[in-house]
Amino acid sequence: MKAERFRFDGSETCEIRKLPCGAGDEKENKQALAARTAENLEKMAALQDGFYADGREGLIVVLQALDAAGKDSMVKHVMGGLNPQGVSVHSFKQPNQEELAHDFLWRVNRVLPARGHIAIFNRSYYEDVLVVQVHDLQEGYRMAPRVLEDSRKEFFRKRYRQIRDYEEYLYENSYRIVKILLNVSKEKQRERFLERIETPEKNWKFSPDDIRERRLFDEYLDTFDEVVNATASRHSPWYVLPADQKWYTRYLVSEILTAELESCCHEYPKLPPAARANLAACRRMLQEEEA
Amino acid sequence: MKAERFRFDGSETCEIRKLPCGAGDEKENKQALAARTAENLEKMAALQDGFYADGREGLIVVLQALDAAGKDSMVKHVMGGLNPQGVSVHSFKQPNQEELAHDFLWRVNRVLPARGHIAIFNRSYYEDVLVVQVHDLQEGYRMAPRVLEDSRKEFFRKRYRQIRDYEEYLYENSYRIVKILLNVSKEKQRERFLERIETPEKNWKFSPDDIRERRLFDEYLDTFDEVVNATASRHSPWYVLPADQKWYTRYLVSEILTAELESCCHEYPKLPPAARANLAACRRMLQEEEA
Repeated sequence: MKAERFRFDGSETCEIRKLPCGAGDEKENKQALAARTAENLEKMAALQDGFYADGREGLIVVLQALDAAGKDSMVKHVMGGLNPQGVSVHSFKQPNQEELAHDFLWRVNRVLPARGHIAIFNRSYYEDVLVVQVHDLQEGYRMAPRVLEDSRKEFFRKRYRQIRDYEEYLYENSYRIVKILLNVSKEKQRERFLERIETPEKNWKFSPDDIRERRLFDEYLDTFDEVVNATASRHSPWYVLPADQKWYTRYLVSEILTAELESCCHEYPKLPPAARANLAACRRMLQEEEA
Repeated sequence: MKAERFRFDGSETCEIRKLPCGAGDEKENKQALAARTAENLEKMAALQDGFYADGREGLIVVLQALDAAGKDSMVKHVMGGLNPQGVSVHSFKQPNQEELAHDFLWRVNRVLPARGHIAIFNRSYYEDVLVVQVHDLQEGYRMAPRVLEDSRKEFFRKRYRQIRDYEEYLYENSYRIVKILLNVSKEKQRERFLERIETPEKNWKFSPDDIRERRLFDEYLDTFDEVVNATASRHSPWYVLPADQKWYTRYLVSEILTAELESCCHEYPKLPPAARANLAACRRMLQEEEA
């Protein structure tokens, strides 16, 4: 699988500036890869059907990125082919007062999927070590002195550990977590922002704040490296995917999710003999109605 | 504090059969201790007021015990004096289908208190290593083979670690956890069951299942020891309290909670100078209305 080269499971260090943002040579295979994406989407839908009926595992897909990297369109185009009965998408925006009055995983726990279901997190608890860290938002938190006395470094070091423990806990409780970081270039972000400003139907997706965040592009890249390296693990790997060509990113994500669903439990439950005998009786009753 | 001798923080091993179920010599001090309990309840109410206004910490009180050990009456008589605006009581009974389709902490996370609030868990996530373990309920769970392939011992060893991580996470996120195990004797349980059977107003508290569970009394004691020793920690200690005389247990719990609330943040928020100046302006406006 071509996405393997963008996979981080803790065995190698991620240096995001050395990873490609574009499709590179793969541009020549665009047509073949787009066809493969379409095939994958069909496979995913079929696999999800069994995954839902099976109900022994749950799947969480974490999407993180800078603005205009293509998270929303990824959800629409890659997850759009799944049966919505078994999928939920949750966007984690700036926390409200009730959320801030709880531990930072509280709002995540509220929307954890039941087993058999897939949850897509459009941004996630990783915001609590990304935007929070870049803007030092923790300094304004109302928490006990024993928590806030920690140095900035120590505070986030603890959060990384808490996140690792949390993801391992979920894995051990029959969940899978796939974490995707869309790696968009600064130049492509500029292009997409300009497009949002120049296209009236896209104006709503732009905010002057986006420019303020863009000024911190480099700081975000540094923080991405730190976060990926602190939280990539065998059971909850990160995929740091080129995001400048959407068709290519979609292809990669469709490969990742197809492989993931294939490796999850997706067998249709088999009835025990007594229940099967009962099915036969029900069939007879239905057939006799005809006569 | 007399409750200290029943406190387990991981530094000493708990052997529940060596701990008293009754008040012992303290019976002679019954009147003084009951007076002290009443004082503590008043202190707790005053402390809770500041704790609520402060809002920097949350408090979770876990109550575990065998049947008829006095959990319900403890909630009524010791927590009953608190302002219900800042307290919630949650009873964790047999999990329903939706709860079983999630990780075992899911239903706990849903009812975690906001900071400034106190949550009393009448039974808790500890049921998932107590009744589940004693009855091997995990064998009937729908989870991935990788989870259920673990030996029984390994399965619960992981749960203990998960619980330790969870409690440490909560502590690091500005919560306190106090865990209380009511240690009732088998003879006292028999007495209280008979009373429930013989008193029509108490019949509803008795179920024939209680007799079935009573047969496993010894197995529960073994499991209590294992669970307390695996999950007692400095920040989330267990108190294994004599429960045969309710007035004595109430006294001990009132001591524990008073000390805990005293050690939690409970300062009334101080306004910054600008806000204080604003208060002065508001006062003037109110006073001028009179004129």
